[in-house]
Amino acid sequence: MSELRKDPVTGRWVIIASERENRPGVTLPNFADTPPPGPCPFCEGNESQTPPEVLAFRDRNSQRNQKGWWVRVIPNKFPAMKIEGPTLKVGEGMYDMMSGIGAHEVVIEDPRHDMRMSDMPVKQIEEIFWAYRERMLDLHRDLRFRYVMIFKNHGSRSGATLDHSHSQIIALPIIPKQVQEELDGARNYYAYKERCVFCDIIHQEESDNLRIVSSNEWFIGFHPYASRFPYETWILPRQHESFFSDIQINEVADLARLIKEALQRFKKILKDPAYNFVIHTAPCTEEDSPHYHWHVELIPRLTRIAGFEWGTGFYINSISPEVATKRILGLEENGVEPEERVRTSVG
Amino acid sequence: MSELRKDPVTGRWVIIASERENRPGVTLPNFADTPPPGPCPFCEGNESQTPPEVLAFRDRNSQRNQKGWWVRVIPNKFPAMKIEGPTLKVGEGMYDMMSGIGAHEVVIEDPRHDMRMSDMPVKQIEEIFWAYRERMLDLHRDLRFRYVMIFKNHGSRSGATLDHSHSQIIALPIIPKQVQEELDGARNYYAYKERCVFCDIIHQEESDNLRIVSSNEWFIGFHPYASRFPYETWILPRQHESFFSDIQINEVADLARLIKEALQRFKKILKDPAYNFVIHTAPCTEEDSPHYHWHVELIPRLTRIAGFEWGTGFYINSISPEVATKRILGLEENGVEPEERVRTSVG
Repeated sequence: MSELRKDPVTGRWVIIASERENRPGVTLPNFADTPPPGPCPFCEGNESQTPPEVLAFRDRNSQRNQKGWWVRVIPNKFPAMKIEGPTLKVGEGMYDMMSGIGAHEVVIEDPRHDMRMSDMPVKQIEEIFWAYRERMLDLHRDLRFRYVMIFKNHGSRSGATLDHSHSQIIALPIIPKQVQEELDGARNYYAYKERCVFCDIIHQEESDNLRIVSSNEWFIGFHPYASRFPYETWILPRQHESFFSDIQINEVADLARLIKEALQRFKKILKDPAYNFVIHTAPCTEEDSPHYHWHVELIPRLTRIAGFEWGTGFYINSISPEVATKRILGLEENGVEPEERVRTSVG
Repeated sequence: MSELRKDPVTGRWVIIASERENRPGVTLPNFADTPPPGPCPFCEGNESQTPPEVLAFRDRNSQRNQKGWWVRVIPNKFPAMKIEGPTLKVGEGMYDMMSGIGAHEVVIEDPRHDMRMSDMPVKQIEEIFWAYRERMLDLHRDLRFRYVMIFKNHGSRSGATLDHSHSQIIALPIIPKQVQEELDGARNYYAYKERCVFCDIIHQEESDNLRIVSSNEWFIGFHPYASRFPYETWILPRQHESFFSDIQINEVADLARLIKEALQRFKKILKDPAYNFVIHTAPCTEEDSPHYHWHVELIPRLTRIAGFEWGTGFYINSISPEVATKRILGLEENGVEPEERVRTSVG
């Protein structure tokens, strides 16, 4: 059984999840990035190889756990945490421990093995984000959970172990440290300015117009001023909103458009890198708040993280967001050559 | 010129260092891990290819920037920050910026190209840590700097771009976020308990005796209770001490013994992984404090960091520190097979 342990210095919670050692693909020598042998469990027709679905968008005439779906959500077969069992909090000497209660689900984004999110029709991306929303609303009903995290790893460099396009949902009984820091920072800013820091950032970006990569009626995408990574992209709703799960159907179409645009640019201009995105939203336990503003952070994996970053949370970015914006929009005479896919970490 | 920029939400400082794009080895397509062409600038005899040394332990009869040294410290040829210039702090709209004033040095750990720290005599490792100390003391004299960070990347997976064994020193005009968090956490614990949290951890580890991997008169090494990574190892001085730079000559020998032991075990039991270590010490600007306790964090790079960890600072570790301790000490019947070098990140 996995457990959550708290670092007594920083208060950071870690999952110690021994069972994950047994999942396929992780036990290959030398971390080879070959997929596990056998047919892909995420492909249409192989539904019986996964745990039963918790949500699927499928044809009216199709049956659960059969063909006929276009987005399918299943529990992770090798979960970092389990949904059953009591929430146990105990001290071990000076240390704090909790039982690893949580949900860990996989969103299979397309029935076809080789379809990637960047190439999907906008409508399909819309459906995926709508599935995220439905799962988040459902998981929010479980009062043991304090945070629902949704993220996607694309490409083996990003940590993905299966090729078939998918994303993941994790519901946690704690609020992750960086989420808490973002909340605290936003709350402090609000206490001082009586304005949402993210709303202010949107206004600043619009007035500077140096880092915006895309925008439409409901969303804006830009490279943040203090980007940790080259081409790091944030997508924010223009209107203040704390919870991703409050997104409306007309808004999700606009979000899908910006996501596709960003991924297409990564693919074309940055030569198809691995990438991650994470949805940053307010914790389930928070009220709708004037200070927190949900958003998506998209990071192409062009760099390695070196000891410097690991030890300090301090990042060196070799391409300024202003230059990155020009390049990704094709506004610079010299396009991005493959050799500009630099490592920024300190060698 | 590089600059420091502050994230307005979390307060995290980032170096935007465009000049680093030009260093060798970083411009290769597809992040190939081949070293730059030409002779190694760190090898004995090639001293003229590096900037002039700032410190060298060398034979009495040898000359500066010539052969005859056993540890040599030089400014980084492709520094993340520059030592010259005024410290400029400006607002850019709502954002905060500082000029990228700092020092960035390289410690060449051995004159021989193929010598690795794990294989060096204890005496040589001692000399390296003594060089760290001398440089730290010197950099502390520059009042523009608030923190001196010392770290080592070994192996390309860790972010190292040159094979020749080396480590790095960065002096910063700010305190990195994670360092500040550690300081704040330790200060809060002290305010509550009137004891150093790290001293308490040492006592807890000694009484539990489940996670200790090595110890001697002056130092203790263990896998921390809330390890983020499999085989993550902390080495602490047994006596309370805030600054690494206060280390004494008899202590540094004991530290070198524990470092060598840990690296030898990584090499033998974990099949020669890439690794990082970072020295965590109090900021130059702090007084000697009852709450902060310097230490070394050593992390073998067995895993990839996936989107989950990047987006949240929340880690999943697939091997508990207790199991890792048994394995690294060879106390488990089943030794560590190559296929146990698992990825723990969420695929």
